[in-house]
Amino acid sequence: MAYLNDNYLKLKAGYLFPEIGRRVKAFCDLHPDAAKRLIRCGIGDVTEPLPPAAIVALHKAVDEMAVRETFRGYGPEQGYGFLRETIARNDYRERGIEIAEDEIFVSDGSKCDCGSILDVLGNRNKIAISDPVYPVYVDTNVMAGHTGEANEQGAYGKIVYLPCRPSNGFIPEPPRRHVDVVYLCSPNNPTGAAATRAQLEAWVQYAVREKSILLFDAAYEAYIRDPALPRSIYEIPGAQECAIEFRSFSKHGGFTGLRCAFTVVPKALKAQTKSGEFQALHPLWARRMSTKFNGVAYIIQRAAEALYSPEGQAQVQALIAHYMGNAAVLRAGARKAGLKVFGGENAPYIWVRTPKNVTSWGAFDKILGDANVVITPGSGFGSKGEGYFRISAFNTRANAEEVASRLQSLPW
Amino acid sequence: MAYLNDNYLKLKAGYLFPEIGRRVKAFCDLHPDAAKRLIRCGIGDVTEPLPPAAIVALHKAVDEMAVRETFRGYGPEQGYGFLRETIARNDYRERGIEIAEDEIFVSDGSKCDCGSILDVLGNRNKIAISDPVYPVYVDTNVMAGHTGEANEQGAYGKIVYLPCRPSNGFIPEPPRRHVDVVYLCSPNNPTGAAATRAQLEAWVQYAVREKSILLFDAAYEAYIRDPALPRSIYEIPGAQECAIEFRSFSKHGGFTGLRCAFTVVPKALKAQTKSGEFQALHPLWARRMSTKFNGVAYIIQRAAEALYSPEGQAQVQALIAHYMGNAAVLRAGARKAGLKVFGGENAPYIWVRTPKNVTSWGAFDKILGDANVVITPGSGFGSKGEGYFRISAFNTRANAEEVASRLQSLPW
Repeated sequence: MAYLNDNYLKLKAGYLFPEIGRRVKAFCDLHPDAAKRLIRCGIGDVTEPLPPAAIVALHKAVDEMAVRETFRGYGPEQGYGFLRETIARNDYRERGIEIAEDEIFVSDGSKCDCGSILDVLGNRNKIAISDPVYPVYVDTNVMAGHTGEANEQGAYGKIVYLPCRPSNGFIPEPPRRHVDVVYLCSPNNPTGAAATRAQLEAWVQYAVREKSILLFDAAYEAYIRDPALPRSIYEIPGAQECAIEFRSFSKHGGFTGLRCAFTVVPKALKAQTKSGEFQALHPLWARRMSTKFNGVAYIIQRAAEALYSPEGQAQVQALIAHYMGNAAVLRAGARKAGLKVFGGENAPYIWVRTPKNVTSWGAFDKILGDANVVITPGSGFGSKGEGYFRISAFNTRANAEEVASRLQSLPW
Repeated sequence: MAYLNDNYLKLKAGYLFPEIGRRVKAFCDLHPDAAKRLIRCGIGDVTEPLPPAAIVALHKAVDEMAVRETFRGYGPEQGYGFLRETIARNDYRERGIEIAEDEIFVSDGSKCDCGSILDVLGNRNKIAISDPVYPVYVDTNVMAGHTGEANEQGAYGKIVYLPCRPSNGFIPEPPRRHVDVVYLCSPNNPTGAAATRAQLEAWVQYAVREKSILLFDAAYEAYIRDPALPRSIYEIPGAQECAIEFRSFSKHGGFTGLRCAFTVVPKALKAQTKSGEFQALHPLWARRMSTKFNGVAYIIQRAAEALYSPEGQAQVQALIAHYMGNAAVLRAGARKAGLKVFGGENAPYIWVRTPKNVTSWGAFDKILGDANVVITPGSGFGSKGEGYFRISAFNTRANAEEVASRLQSLPW
């Protein structure tokens, strides 16, 4: 009589994006004419083709796989040296941050890593999570049995929620109480807020003092335009003792359909055993990757490497400039529509207050029904997201302009 | 004071293949001349280039990613419909097995899935594992805290080991006692034994009676030559109520460096909650994949699909015939050397008894030192593997012939 993992039964509704997909499909089936003018600004998925440098690298690597002499079978589970070295040099050492090549772990996605990191952490940690935020942090903790049951608002009793509000610039302050593990996301998904140096310093001070671990999701760092804002948690002294950083090529190089990311686990980072000794997490994560993962496809690691070539970097910058141009158009459009707007300046997401106390899902249904635009309801990211919605800037410019225009003619 | 997962500290030594890699590197550094004639028959990694049909499909899909109109971002987490449908039809329905498209979950590797499946199972299951077998089953259960500590022989107290011996054809019989979850691997890695229909029928009967779950790893099914042997657990009536099947393109299409596999979770398969109700595991696994995974790269799913085209199938058959030809050469060579030989007839692995009571690692060091051939010590697969070693048939024909010849001149 095999047992299932009962924690899964504590999950609220579906994962956000499949739920949106179901609602959109139902609407389109009912209104085929409206479906034709549908514009999707919901899921944060890139729309532009891969940078040419990645395409060239993919074709070249595919050709290598066609010949015995250059064929590659199993690669190193933690990533090929050529990519780990390229990442460590470009993203860290050339920016004055001492991260070693073997502290970089290449994976098939930050979503996967944000969930898998719980494998190497104990079950008795007190977990703190920003609210609103990317739902994967909460859901993977529910699955791991760290949360208890949800209340009527969908909040889990054992999680410490860190409210993100206009008054703190949507970046939470460290709590007064002790927590063991903290999820931070900057630039934040969904609010588009990017943490300042002072805000991250406060977090690193807290974590060093409390011997806590910061799980720092920097999937959108490439979208930071303000040079004063940190792009890595390791820009803050002391962070290597307390922070794991998640980065992705999904939004950086448009790799959502290719699947490549990396996680930085510094060797200086320690956690305690049940008996109270402190040990480095690095060998545990290395072992986890060796045992439960088999590396990212060689051809895809070559594509990721190509993003760091001079042409690749220029193409990535052009791609990001395109999406951030959309963000400016959407911000301006939503403001002209009289809406209260946040984000979109250092992130590809616009975070909008719903007018007239409309709920998030109410706004979703209204914007879908009246403007035929798919947005993401803020409440899907946590209870403090209620009363907001997110507009994604991942689109063509023409679509961004059309959405800006439709928002202005929307009768609330 | 964050806690780490203490279960990781119960793991014995390194994961087998990194450990072999370290020993081989040390030998090669000390003996550069011997290193030049080194032949690797250790890790079961393919050596031949990708089938041309896969190469063509990859190039075509890469070109699609270069153009906005055909670019693909996030795909369905459970796999594209085109691949799930192709698998369900070719591998199951055309062989008389009713498996639905949405019971197929495409992933980046059977290793990953064999580990991840524990996510949806509870912590109180009694786990049974063949011995010797692929080390990932034991190691992932250690990590999940299901095993207790290891004894001096490396066996974990809470695991029920199912001995694989010459007397049972290296396929374990169901135990007399109750167990909740059973790992079976057929054709077996490392022994090369393939379960007969009668053996699998006994397991399905056991599982249905005991309400247990069979985790059936069929990663090597494509190597079965004997038409009387089942290639899927679902050829046995009743298996859809009790078995999850893992399949991979790694050995089937030479995809070890591309990463694509699939897992079948039938909707009829149930497990119980803590309160004793039976629920289907299918929605839990679907949710796990949505939340902790982001799908396999589009271009790689197209390559996997291409293996099912008429040309692809012919190329795959030629690839497997090549490796099985090597297996015949290696079997014959080891026999001529006076060794006791198993496997290699329906699997790409030869399982060899060490002569003169030499230990497995003793044989490893001797064959490395005297014949400059890398094999895999049987004890790395479990305590019942002591006194055996595995020779992999994944190689060029010339290398297989050279290894067969060197084995014959090896003084034990």
